[in-house]
Amino acid sequence: MLVVMQSGATPEQIEAVCDAIRAMGFQPVAMPGAQRTAVGLIGNDRPVDGSPVAGMPGVAEVIRVSQPFKQVSREWRAENTVVEIAPGVAFGGRNVAVIAGPCSVESEAQIIASAHAVRDAGAVALRGGAFKPRSSPYSFQGMGKRGLELLAKARDETGLAIVTEAMDEEGANLVAEYADCIQIGARNMQNFSLLKAVGRMDKPVLLKRGMAATIQELLLAAEYVLAEGNTRVILCERGVRGFDPATRNIFDLSAIPLVHKLSHLPIIADPSHGVGLREHVPSMARASIAAGADGLILEVHPNPDRALSDGAQTLHTEQFARLMHELSTIATAIGREMAHPAGTVAGRAG
Amino acid sequence: MLVVMQSGATPEQIEAVCDAIRAMGFQPVAMPGAQRTAVGLIGNDRPVDGSPVAGMPGVAEVIRVSQPFKQVSREWRAENTVVEIAPGVAFGGRNVAVIAGPCSVESEAQIIASAHAVRDAGAVALRGGAFKPRSSPYSFQGMGKRGLELLAKARDETGLAIVTEAMDEEGANLVAEYADCIQIGARNMQNFSLLKAVGRMDKPVLLKRGMAATIQELLLAAEYVLAEGNTRVILCERGVRGFDPATRNIFDLSAIPLVHKLSHLPIIADPSHGVGLREHVPSMARASIAAGADGLILEVHPNPDRALSDGAQTLHTEQFARLMHELSTIATAIGREMAHPAGTVAGRAG
Amino acid sequence: MLVVMQSGATPEQIEAVCDAIRAMGFQPVAMPGAQRTAVGLIGNDRPVDGSPVAGMPGVAEVIRVSQPFKQVSREWRAENTVVEIAPGVAFGGRNVAVIAGPCSVESEAQIIASAHAVRDAGAVALRGGAFKPRSSPYSFQGMGKRGLELLAKARDETGLAIVTEAMDEEGANLVAEYADCIQIGARNMQNFSLLKAVGRMDKPVLLKRGMAATIQELLLAAEYVLAEGNTRVILCERGVRGFDPATRNIFDLSAIPLVHKLSHLPIIADPSHGVGLREHVPSMARASIAAGADGLILEVHPNPDRALSDGAQTLHTEQFARLMHELSTIATAIGREMAHPAGTVAGRAG
Amino acid sequence: MLVVMQSGATPEQIEAVCDAIRAMGFQPVAMPGAQRTAVGLIGNDRPVDGSPVAGMPGVAEVIRVSQPFKQVSREWRAENTVVEIAPGVAFGGRNVAVIAGPCSVESEAQIIASAHAVRDAGAVALRGGAFKPRSSPYSFQGMGKRGLELLAKARDETGLAIVTEAMDEEGANLVAEYADCIQIGARNMQNFSLLKAVGRMDKPVLLKRGMAATIQELLLAAEYVLAEGNTRVILCERGVRGFDPATRNIFDLSAIPLVHKLSHLPIIADPSHGVGLREHVPSMARASIAAGADGLILEVHPNPDRALSDGAQTLHTEQFARLMHELSTIATAIGREMAHPAGTVAGRAG
Repeated sequence: MLVVMQSGATPEQIEAVCDAIRAMGFQPVAMPGAQRTAVGLIGNDRPVDGSPVAGMPGVAEVIRVSQPFKQVSREWRAENTVVEIAPGVAFGGRNVAVIAGPCSVESEAQIIASAHAVRDAGAVALRGGAFKPRSSPYSFQGMGKRGLELLAKARDETGLAIVTEAMDEEGANLVAEYADCIQIGARNMQNFSLLKAVGRMDKPVLLKRGMAATIQELLLAAEYVLAEGNTRVILCERGVRGFDPATRNIFDLSAIPLVHKLSHLPIIADPSHGVGLREHVPSMARASIAAGADGLILEVHPNPDRALSDGAQTLHTEQFARLMHELSTIATAIGREMAHPAGTVAGRAG
Repeated sequence: MLVVMQSGATPEQIEAVCDAIRAMGFQPVAMPGAQRTAVGLIGNDRPVDGSPVAGMPGVAEVIRVSQPFKQVSREWRAENTVVEIAPGVAFGGRNVAVIAGPCSVESEAQIIASAHAVRDAGAVALRGGAFKPRSSPYSFQGMGKRGLELLAKARDETGLAIVTEAMDEEGANLVAEYADCIQIGARNMQNFSLLKAVGRMDKPVLLKRGMAATIQELLLAAEYVLAEGNTRVILCERGVRGFDPATRNIFDLSAIPLVHKLSHLPIIADPSHGVGLREHVPSMARASIAAGADGLILEVHPNPDRALSDGAQTLHTEQFARLMHELSTIATAIGREMAHPAGTVAGRAG
Repeated sequence: MLVVMQSGATPEQIEAVCDAIRAMGFQPVAMPGAQRTAVGLIGNDRPVDGSPVAGMPGVAEVIRVSQPFKQVSREWRAENTVVEIAPGVAFGGRNVAVIAGPCSVESEAQIIASAHAVRDAGAVALRGGAFKPRSSPYSFQGMGKRGLELLAKARDETGLAIVTEAMDEEGANLVAEYADCIQIGARNMQNFSLLKAVGRMDKPVLLKRGMAATIQELLLAAEYVLAEGNTRVILCERGVRGFDPATRNIFDLSAIPLVHKLSHLPIIADPSHGVGLREHVPSMARASIAAGADGLILEVHPNPDRALSDGAQTLHTEQFARLMHELSTIATAIGREMAHPAGTVAGRAG
Repeated sequence: MLVVMQSGATPEQIEAVCDAIRAMGFQPVAMPGAQRTAVGLIGNDRPVDGSPVAGMPGVAEVIRVSQPFKQVSREWRAENTVVEIAPGVAFGGRNVAVIAGPCSVESEAQIIASAHAVRDAGAVALRGGAFKPRSSPYSFQGMGKRGLELLAKARDETGLAIVTEAMDEEGANLVAEYADCIQIGARNMQNFSLLKAVGRMDKPVLLKRGMAATIQELLLAAEYVLAEGNTRVILCERGVRGFDPATRNIFDLSAIPLVHKLSHLPIIADPSHGVGLREHVPSMARASIAAGADGLILEVHPNPDRALSDGAQTLHTEQFARLMHELSTIATAIGREMAHPAGTVAGRAG
């Protein structure tokens, strides 16, 4: 922490700031400049909350020097964390893994058909919402527990790992029973009760960036999970709120290298929500891999025009199969490889 | 819903869209234009989800015509809803009511002193967090149940109504036991499980606008509460995320007249979070009243420089007393009046 | 400037940063901390550009300590600057002055009728665009020089001061010939050639905040004008780009107290562009005065439904007259007074 | 244009809207719905400005149906426009072309060294500012005409095409004399006088997206240039203003496929400004190519730590050479090829 004083700050005001810093248990160091005096801290080995000082007379600005996060940081752990959500289905290593499936589980026929289609195209995990956070209470809210049962059935048939969202602690317990990875959606990124709850569980967590969350806030949200003991967290960039109605969100791909620099956790990308328009999903998926994403999560549906939610951004299964080929060439170009579903020829080879 | 076709859309594509609309149970009406054809709907008496159509071949854009919310809308109820959170403490009528107090409950001495100070200055309700949503798991998380007990004690001593935040269903049940109004914070505005939970309770709800929530999303979040049966909802503008680091948020005062136009629910303003700097809170509080806010929620602390959270945006008690005088002249200027705490002379007169 | 080193920075990297600072002509001071070392500067009496250092090995962050602006700052001049654009028409003093009129000059009849109407209601200056910056080249671009002649005629008839926009140096010279104050629009806030050109003229400048400009950038844009010798600059908040389509912009009223704190220049507000919807302009105009704005600029048209531009946000003349009464009570409530047009009874008294 | 009436709109209000539409010269068509009536237009063959209608009594919303741009649209010209700025240096074809060089021209030695370095690594054009738009009037403003002379000298020595910025009409004339392509910077994207000026010139234009410009506004800005007769426009995504201080901007790569869909003009990407941090430029450059960009513009300097501007986001020449190899593999992976400088072996082959 560094406290910058106003240019006309009096010696008494500077001394009062020094006192306040001492009261926090630290050692203040005043540094007089030509225009202003700054007051630094010596001896702190943990982040310091500067807000009590920010409002004191004569203070111009309080500047945070240390990162506020800890266990998620690269300084805490230098090597990449590889999160395995099922045998052979890992995020954060050399392989790029793809999660695909419909926005929502709608019926047994739909989810089973989706699972076969995405597996045949090379996905290693199946997505599909059983509990759906919808802006309107009158929109389809998901099939609930029955949806989880159908996802489990799809895993039995295809061997795909299952990733699905939970919206509260009770739902997270249910999801943990049926699925391989608990997704925390963008709207719940700072639902700290839910983060603590999944932090106490023994299940990997896919944590999506909030609509207007900074990278630091995303990492602090992950820190909530790690602080409770669960270190298997996969982050996900899914677009942030923007001013241009031409796209659903602004897909912020710089999140990928930034997270890789600041943290050891894997990060994947969700181009379906990122751009929100089916025809632009393939180019954004290619860009995500080229930017270094450890995986993708994509919305795919056998018949998107009849989907109960997110139809406009959902790929047809044939589009998805074509896209998987393109992604493979990009992955190779940057020295990585697409993960393959267990039991397939490429999977055996890998 | 209106479906705008691309300029080169074929008759077959237009017919396919008409079919899809019929499959949803509505009557399509094609309207050929000089450049493009548009397809409208006749006979719908409820909002229509256009996303399945948006991705169909030949479709340029899908435009929503009806508002997606219902019970919160002015069309549902023309007159203002007045929400009374305690006898004589009402939001949405002619009077402008002020909720004030510290960011967090820190100790018995602190909350009791705060309660007396804000009541003496004219506040009708006491705020103070017992459960605190903090970006970092290492920041002060609130006193929990003990904090609620101290708030109840402050009410016993001063007669002030109590407003405090809940972060999950369990917490909401506890808050409902001790307080007069359950606050849902900005980070939980789209925590739909929590919204449904408080919708089933018999307690007024103060719902804060999310960091990047549109007015429509704020109203839909309130709709979740009303849809469960609880109609006593007070909305709150508290600033949205912006690009300028000079302020903590952008305080979007246009939310006040917009909500008043679209909805019958009361809306108050939170200039403390809106601007995030103590010295600018008074001008933003005055502006809120002038814009037509039904009340304010303000952070006030006997010693903000030692507050455990939000110190930089918290008013000193003397600043608050001065501000209450200014607010009173603004309220009078627009034909309203400040609400007064029960038992005071002005309160008796009113 | 403060350079924060990474936690593992080597002594050589720290020394290289010190060298680079010396090469800039300053004195480095290394401050070792428990986690990181920071390097400060002593002896600088002007803002320092830290970008060369930001990319050096071992550097985590470069923090700017001094404000980058100079002549516009309160530290440069403690008392308010009062900008008089015509005899008795001043911004920045105790009085609150209103500029009103149509978006564009459309015809002699329209601008003369507008001028009489806004003067009768209490405006002290007439707005009206002769050169119009329009997003599309196919939209009405203004009447050009003929529009300026009509504005001059309206001044002759009513005594109102004239404020109108210039889009380039040539236009600014023309505007200076006919009008009392040159407006620089939001889209040209960082058109530095134009800023320098008006900085060399002997005419007051109304500088509008850019669509996504920070307060610091607004002040630096003004600094361009002052640096050329023209100190008569009035700033204007007109809303910034936001994510909610419910309003045209987000009207950022915190700009008013922020500018008053940082600068001695007057600042007015433009609620017409700020909110973009006629029915919400009055509440935002009231809020602007309550927030401390030194004046307002409002779009008023005798027949807004037939206006060639901005019709939806333009007040009817009767609405404007009503609003002026309301504004007067707000101004009184905060100890100010509305300016009155010269020659009116109130004007004589003032 | 579609006019949506409020649910309680009277027949008189609907008729008044129809009258207003007739007064504009179009044919209104009223479409009564279950909740509301909508009024459409038939017979318009050009974009309609709906703002006069938007404020009429009973009107809920005015929706624009046609795109407001014309000559830049894909509907105007179906095939890609290829813009050649010098013999063999083209944007918009199968090849991906790279413009590279320092932020500013600083000296003869610096620009000549830069030119050789970027040409050796495979760039086909040299960038370097002679006129610099800087937020502060006290920052380095560029070498002006002398800078242009040095750029011309660098072209003579290396054969690279020259791309450099103009800030006003006079500067554009000078730039046109010395350079191959006139750059219009983000801050001038809506400087319509400048756009018209370069529209009248016979020189290619590189038009950068404004800080908070929508894609539609970017295309309309290009329309200003085409409307004056100059069809050789290259668009450029360079990041938009965001809320996260972790990056200088949000690099909005979805602009690439969006522009390709809506327009026939080429679009390139500027990852240096997009992310603003040297270490993240390579991943964003790779992502740009994968997203389909027709080229890149990159900041490269022989000694970025001593650069007079933008040092923190500028690549070292060795980093740039490495990056060019990576980009080549990405281009191949999506079926494109990097353009090669004239006279090199690959260039001859191509």
